[in-house]
Amino acid sequence: MVGKILRVNMRELTVRYEDLPDKYLLFGGRALTSALVADEVPPGAHALGENNKLVIAPGLLSGTTAPCSGRLSVGAKSPLTGTIKESNAGGITAQKVACLGIRAIVVEGRPAGDGFHLLVVGEDEAKLLPAGDLTGMGCYRLNEELWKRYGTKSGVISVGPAGEMRMVVAGVSTNDGEGHPGRYAGRGGLGAVMGSKGLKAIVVRTDKAFDVPVKNREAFKEAARKFAKAIAEHPVTNAALPAYGTAVLINILNEAGGLPTRNFSDGQFEAAALCSGEALAETVQKRGGKGRTGHVCHPGCLIRCSNIFADEKGEAVCAPVEYESAWALGPNCGISDLDHIAVLNRLCNDVGLDTIETGVTLGVLMEAGVLAFGDGEAAIDLLDREVRNGTPLGRILGGGAEAAGKLFGLTRVPTVKGQGMPAYDPRAVKGIGVTYATSTMGADHTAGYSVTSNILKVGGFVDPLSPAGQVDLSRNLQIATAAVDATGLCLFTAFPLLDVDYALPSVVDMLNAQYGVNLTVGDVVDYGKEILKTERAFNRAAGFTKAHDRLPEFMRHEKLAPHGVTFDVPDEKLDEVFNF
Amino acid sequence: MVGKILRVNMRELTVRYEDLPDKYLLFGGRALTSALVADEVPPGAHALGENNKLVIAPGLLSGTTAPCSGRLSVGAKSPLTGTIKESNAGGITAQKVACLGIRAIVVEGRPAGDGFHLLVVGEDEAKLLPAGDLTGMGCYRLNEELWKRYGTKSGVISVGPAGEMRMVVAGVSTNDGEGHPGRYAGRGGLGAVMGSKGLKAIVVRTDKAFDVPVKNREAFKEAARKFAKAIAEHPVTNAALPAYGTAVLINILNEAGGLPTRNFSDGQFEAAALCSGEALAETVQKRGGKGRTGHVCHPGCLIRCSNIFADEKGEAVCAPVEYESAWALGPNCGISDLDHIAVLNRLCNDVGLDTIETGVTLGVLMEAGVLAFGDGEAAIDLLDREVRNGTPLGRILGGGAEAAGKLFGLTRVPTVKGQGMPAYDPRAVKGIGVTYATSTMGADHTAGYSVTSNILKVGGFVDPLSPAGQVDLSRNLQIATAAVDATGLCLFTAFPLLDVDYALPSVVDMLNAQYGVNLTVGDVVDYGKEILKTERAFNRAAGFTKAHDRLPEFMRHEKLAPHGVTFDVPDEKLDEVFNF
Repeated sequence: MVGKILRVNMRELTVRYEDLPDKYLLFGGRALTSALVADEVPPGAHALGENNKLVIAPGLLSGTTAPCSGRLSVGAKSPLTGTIKESNAGGITAQKVACLGIRAIVVEGRPAGDGFHLLVVGEDEAKLLPAGDLTGMGCYRLNEELWKRYGTKSGVISVGPAGEMRMVVAGVSTNDGEGHPGRYAGRGGLGAVMGSKGLKAIVVRTDKAFDVPVKNREAFKEAARKFAKAIAEHPVTNAALPAYGTAVLINILNEAGGLPTRNFSDGQFEAAALCSGEALAETVQKRGGKGRTGHVCHPGCLIRCSNIFADEKGEAVCAPVEYESAWALGPNCGISDLDHIAVLNRLCNDVGLDTIETGVTLGVLMEAGVLAFGDGEAAIDLLDREVRNGTPLGRILGGGAEAAGKLFGLTRVPTVKGQGMPAYDPRAVKGIGVTYATSTMGADHTAGYSVTSNILKVGGFVDPLSPAGQVDLSRNLQIATAAVDATGLCLFTAFPLLDVDYALPSVVDMLNAQYGVNLTVGDVVDYGKEILKTERAFNRAAGFTKAHDRLPEFMRHEKLAPHGVTFDVPDEKLDEVFNF
Repeated sequence: MVGKILRVNMRELTVRYEDLPDKYLLFGGRALTSALVADEVPPGAHALGENNKLVIAPGLLSGTTAPCSGRLSVGAKSPLTGTIKESNAGGITAQKVACLGIRAIVVEGRPAGDGFHLLVVGEDEAKLLPAGDLTGMGCYRLNEELWKRYGTKSGVISVGPAGEMRMVVAGVSTNDGEGHPGRYAGRGGLGAVMGSKGLKAIVVRTDKAFDVPVKNREAFKEAARKFAKAIAEHPVTNAALPAYGTAVLINILNEAGGLPTRNFSDGQFEAAALCSGEALAETVQKRGGKGRTGHVCHPGCLIRCSNIFADEKGEAVCAPVEYESAWALGPNCGISDLDHIAVLNRLCNDVGLDTIETGVTLGVLMEAGVLAFGDGEAAIDLLDREVRNGTPLGRILGGGAEAAGKLFGLTRVPTVKGQGMPAYDPRAVKGIGVTYATSTMGADHTAGYSVTSNILKVGGFVDPLSPAGQVDLSRNLQIATAAVDATGLCLFTAFPLLDVDYALPSVVDMLNAQYGVNLTVGDVVDYGKEILKTERAFNRAAGFTKAHDRLPEFMRHEKLAPHGVTFDVPDEKLDEVFNF
């Protein structure tokens, strides 16, 4: 037995454990969610229908002492994009699920009625309970309530009102060690899938974090020590991220002319400094109280990129405020007030919305004139009142950027495969443009984070403004990322993995020691390719072709200031990304 | 010179005539709109962007004395479906355009600003005029105003507020001989394309209706006489349609269990008799005044299926009330009050909305609980206030059924390729289901009207409840329809064309006489196939695959009362429709 699958049937309201088939021995995280979705969900299924399945899987290394291995993957057919989808999040839950011997939770079927349920998974049993009293709750109160009932060591996976209402902008929340619900598997509307199953939350009850069995403990320990050293030695993971968090990128991207501003109409934001990582860190420090930087999202994290943003009284407003969230709710909306940004971020966490899709949709609605660029108060009202209550305007925001663009007849709509683009303008960071265009997930920066070589000069340098070299860069990163997403390792370990020669071998050594196998470094590439092939095959059967591997038309014609660039990687080159 | 193209550039605000290339000699109506769109619009273009083109073309026989040849085709890449799109309408304008020697009007480019223009096409010149004073006008007032300015013999092609707002439910209105704007090229959001071009209306100024040159006048006259005889002899075109109009189908489809009721949740409507064609005719007769049946939509029509619905005072409310409109705004919304239906129909005509897409979207919103099934007053308010003013809820309706379904997280959403299904449930009328699934246009009954053989027993009988024979039926009709749509002939001539042996030869004789060519009856099939191949190739390049040639998942699982049927034509059979 290589582990268990916990199957939860929401039509029958039954739970059962079954053995993970042997073929899935080395499938974890995204590899396992994508394999199970590809094997069990018809590609033509309606994403909110009874034939879709929500799959939750910790990474292969989650629950061991491997540093930074606490990512939890959530997968399904996406109601936002229509593609296969995996989105992963930090927080404390992946390790707990893994420590219970569960390799995947598969939520299937759909209830006949409208009621919601709660799944409680303990060390001895799993059960479904009616959750009528929790229905409609925002994730903050819900997490408080569930910790009150099940203890403050519980992992909580949940949806807010947006997920209950099956809005395709809804994400799946997981909690951190303080009970904040801000660790989101945000992208692709997975919260709507969970909502469509009538599942309000999953509570994972165990105190353990590092209890997953390892076959060769000594070898594992040695490899983990080496990997930790690589993380400790890299300047991005040992200094920039802990000091400023990911929001350090605001100034960097602004400088590079690739910070999408006011719905991707400019590459620089005049007020970027006001909402930069530096400003955020300074504000948090000055205010004191519960705010802090250098926070960890799960036990065993060595990078500490997270933060808790506090208000003027020192009360925690939002944890964390990440770069992509700050950008989406800030510069992309012409908003520079950090307090507005933090409140918007908190509202996303509470109502249960993907911060990126929310910010991109807000930008589109601002372009449509529904609210004004820069009007933080109006944006707050839109999320807190309209979306929370499911008013028509709230439903429009909950439908995502592509739908909003369609409803208002706009052409400047920054989406690929229906998903809003994250915080890097592909005209000025062309490697990420290739990833947005071709990823199996729609526009997704994490699927092949070419910003590394384009901007951060990690893993070499590829000129971000030239079309040359971007396809190779994106391809290699998409393959590597698929593999990393299977391990449960935080994507930020990619910095040492790309630059420190013994980092990747130490990860392979950990996997070999844990599972008693003999992978080589070369196998990792094949492993990543297989994941992508599985996902591409699903998408192809669902109707996706190379015509969908394209950026929106306006990016080919509209020049982006300050560099005056368009996206000029030729279509034929884009079609070479998956030539393996 | 085989005719002229009138090119209207909305970026430069210029008009110019050019010779129709020889290769297009025998391209008219849909054949010409589809060929021009395929030749000149990049398949990846944004449908509301500067690279899409709106093409307006009369049929090959329009403007001659061929009976029932007044159809006007409008084509573009559709903002609703993303496919190539042709939608055609009756009314007086096709003949006028043809009599001016214009084979196609091609509207291209996109204005930099927001202002609207009016295109006036006369016998000597065409010009663009600012239309600021007409902006925001409903089509009824607009048509009155334009007839006041340009005379009551003018053809008027226009968009209402919905088209100006680029709502993808917006259609293109044309007028009838009384100046009613209810002749719609409704489907596929072509009104939004016209609106995106900043074109409020086109006025076609000529009194002529039958002035197109014919090479061999005697042969033409003889062939036209024969064709008229065939129309006069067929029981559908000589009795049922003139007496009751198309709404005669309400009772017929209800009887057959294929009248989609309350958002396709039932196949029969308990109050069908109240809104049937028979009830409509009786009401119109009883009320007197301006109401009537047996009305013609253009000079030379021999079928007279049209009607003018009058209110209790005898004032004209809406012309015409067609079956699909009455169904969409009636039974599909649980509404049986003919006065409500007629007012809703008038509002669609005035605001500039496709009645079918509007009704299907209303059905979806009723299922979502936004308004109640059967609440005609609420539906009227939604169109008259919310849509007309572009409120958030109005924008949702204006986004069509698929978007509404997505925003409200529903799975019972009756669309194919993003377009709402017309008035025949494909589970109980399986031939039309094959057409909906595979048509190049999305769910479109006119693309291959299998209702003929399934229900009306015209052109043979194919059991509507069995999957057998439906693919062949739909294929043959899709091919024949493409050819008919090129001629400018009303689709109702298909009844004699299918049943009367000399009908099709007489059409071929007319074409030969008019153009001095030697087509055979056998050529007609190849001609239809070529049109479909052109359209399929465009769609393929735009990203459509066999995965899109499918009905919504719920129709495979949810049984339709009263027959308890699902849609069970196998996918592999659907993929055989275009095996030519």
